[in-house]
Amino acid sequence: MKKRRKKRVLRQVTARYLARRLGLSQSTISRAFTESASIHPDTKERVMNAANSLGYQPNIIARSLITRQTNIVAVVVANLTDPFYPLVLDQLARRIQSNGRQVLLFIVPGGKRVDDVLPSLLQYKVDAIVITSATVSSRMAAVCATQGTPVVLFNRYVPGLKTAAICCDNVAGGRLVADYLRMSGHRRPAFIAGEPDVTTSLDREKGFSARWLEFGISLFAKEVGGDFSYQAGYNAARRLIAGPRKPDCIFFASDVMAIGGIDALRAARLRVPEDISVVGFDDVPIAAWPAYELTTIRQPIAEMADAMSDVLGLETPKIKQPAHRARFFEGTLVERGTVMKRVGVSLARI
Amino acid sequence: MKKRRKKRVLRQVTARYLARRLGLSQSTISRAFTESASIHPDTKERVMNAANSLGYQPNIIARSLITRQTNIVAVVVANLTDPFYPLVLDQLARRIQSNGRQVLLFIVPGGKRVDDVLPSLLQYKVDAIVITSATVSSRMAAVCATQGTPVVLFNRYVPGLKTAAICCDNVAGGRLVADYLRMSGHRRPAFIAGEPDVTTSLDREKGFSARWLEFGISLFAKEVGGDFSYQAGYNAARRLIAGPRKPDCIFFASDVMAIGGIDALRAARLRVPEDISVVGFDDVPIAAWPAYELTTIRQPIAEMADAMSDVLGLETPKIKQPAHRARFFEGTLVERGTVMKRVGVSLARI
Repeated sequence: MKKRRKKRVLRQVTARYLARRLGLSQSTISRAFTESASIHPDTKERVMNAANSLGYQPNIIARSLITRQTNIVAVVVANLTDPFYPLVLDQLARRIQSNGRQVLLFIVPGGKRVDDVLPSLLQYKVDAIVITSATVSSRMAAVCATQGTPVVLFNRYVPGLKTAAICCDNVAGGRLVADYLRMSGHRRPAFIAGEPDVTTSLDREKGFSARWLEFGISLFAKEVGGDFSYQAGYNAARRLIAGPRKPDCIFFASDVMAIGGIDALRAARLRVPEDISVVGFDDVPIAAWPAYELTTIRQPIAEMADAMSDVLGLETPKIKQPAHRARFFEGTLVERGTVMKRVGVSLARI
Repeated sequence: MKKRRKKRVLRQVTARYLARRLGLSQSTISRAFTESASIHPDTKERVMNAANSLGYQPNIIARSLITRQTNIVAVVVANLTDPFYPLVLDQLARRIQSNGRQVLLFIVPGGKRVDDVLPSLLQYKVDAIVITSATVSSRMAAVCATQGTPVVLFNRYVPGLKTAAICCDNVAGGRLVADYLRMSGHRRPAFIAGEPDVTTSLDREKGFSARWLEFGISLFAKEVGGDFSYQAGYNAARRLIAGPRKPDCIFFASDVMAIGGIDALRAARLRVPEDISVVGFDDVPIAAWPAYELTTIRQPIAEMADAMSDVLGLETPKIKQPAHRARFFEGTLVERGTVMKRVGVSLARI
């Protein structure tokens, strides 16, 4: 009986009740629950202890109607099956959370575009939207702008789209791979693309093929995976090596594709790197495993996530509207075991 | 000039304005934006078209104060680096989203417990909390109960804890592995644990070792990884095979640990499965890759995610408080290439 009564009382604990009980003002109670508010630490602790033992929680949702901030940042992801995106999500979420905000996660269902799901996210009056592994149309970017909701594309940019973007310099990455492969003595370079119309894949190809052309060599072969998956890499590599003349190196648009490709080459009794060298892009943890030891371009995810935090002002009380421009970050080459140093070529020559 | 004016007007579009413009009532506008409300499809389309072109969005946050539902379900994850958990998150998020709700994602920072982060989540008045790859104390479960927020543990359960849980039957999975290894002629079974005090690992070990005891065989060796990572599996396998007498099979508490283990065995010039058989648990995509071809127990994640949806009533307008009990789902054995069929043993004998 006694227990039941206690429960009923707990449900009714309000800021007013808490304030009266502690002999404090309601505004002091509110300040105790506001990360950035000025309040004596002892007072804050008293409020917190009382709130915990009485089961009081401020209603952030109600408060958001007054402050016009929900302290929620939406993160839109199209694909969690590529191991690169859980890494990205992890980094983004930690940045957002460490400043007292929460992540509203939206996974774009297969066959739907971000444009289709954004209206439902906007209903939640999130403070900002970060879109990764997918992009929006200029029409939808305009809708967000109209509503005053900042949008940041992460690991994507759309030339001409009026929105902030944070991206690895994929053109430079592609050039770096070409330099490294040429320096190691390769002469018949192939490229395997991911989704054909996505800037990450297009830019990696652009840098790669342009750099080879500067050396007087045009791409020996090219295949399109269709998506960035293991299976797409596997199938594209099979098609690429079907003919009698084979490339001496393959640059894949992503690590997981490259790993699928290595397995396809091995299944065809081709040795990596002795017969064909392979380079990936991303540096996911699997790339370092001894079964693959994949040479790849490491994306500076932590640095890019810091930039996301910067442009949105996550460390300040109020999220800001970032400048509508793309910021690019350079990847670094991670040398492992999938590129052959072909004889007769001095590494110092380039 | 004209453009600027248009922008200012768009910011002010309210349900009232929209209703007047369309000659409809405000309640019709509201019903158009409520998934489960009764409204003629033509009317709904008219409202949606007008809303889109005028940039109107209902404020779900404000509405939640009246309906006492935020349509937000929190998902708490401790670890996204194990490839099993992105799969789980993907399945959970799709179930939650497909019913017009959103996922508030919380990644537990290293060194923090779910208990530390739950109070901050409760402030958002979420409709329910799903906790995966981590658990809560009974004290915190009580706080959630006091607030009336349903909690579901996913892929975890805590005996005696008053909360709903959805879990693979890890004891049965461990027994299944023992049966299969014995049937294949193994006699010196070893187990490599993940985190030593987590039920998933404990139950897999319990079923595995108990079943071997029923055959009159006690565990030949056991190691503790410390966590469920690739590196933990690698290091534990190295310790396990350091002595002169080796097990003839190793059951790892997770796939990623098993893959780390296989790499450790190979580095020590032991062949899998000829010298030592290996079995994992989860069936992550990597398990099927030709570099590993890992025999493992497949967790029925889709079925488990359906159960999560069921117990919370996600397909109904209002989320319900689930019964405080654990529901267990059976895994299935996926035979691949890491278990040796040792000679002289008839597979039909068990």
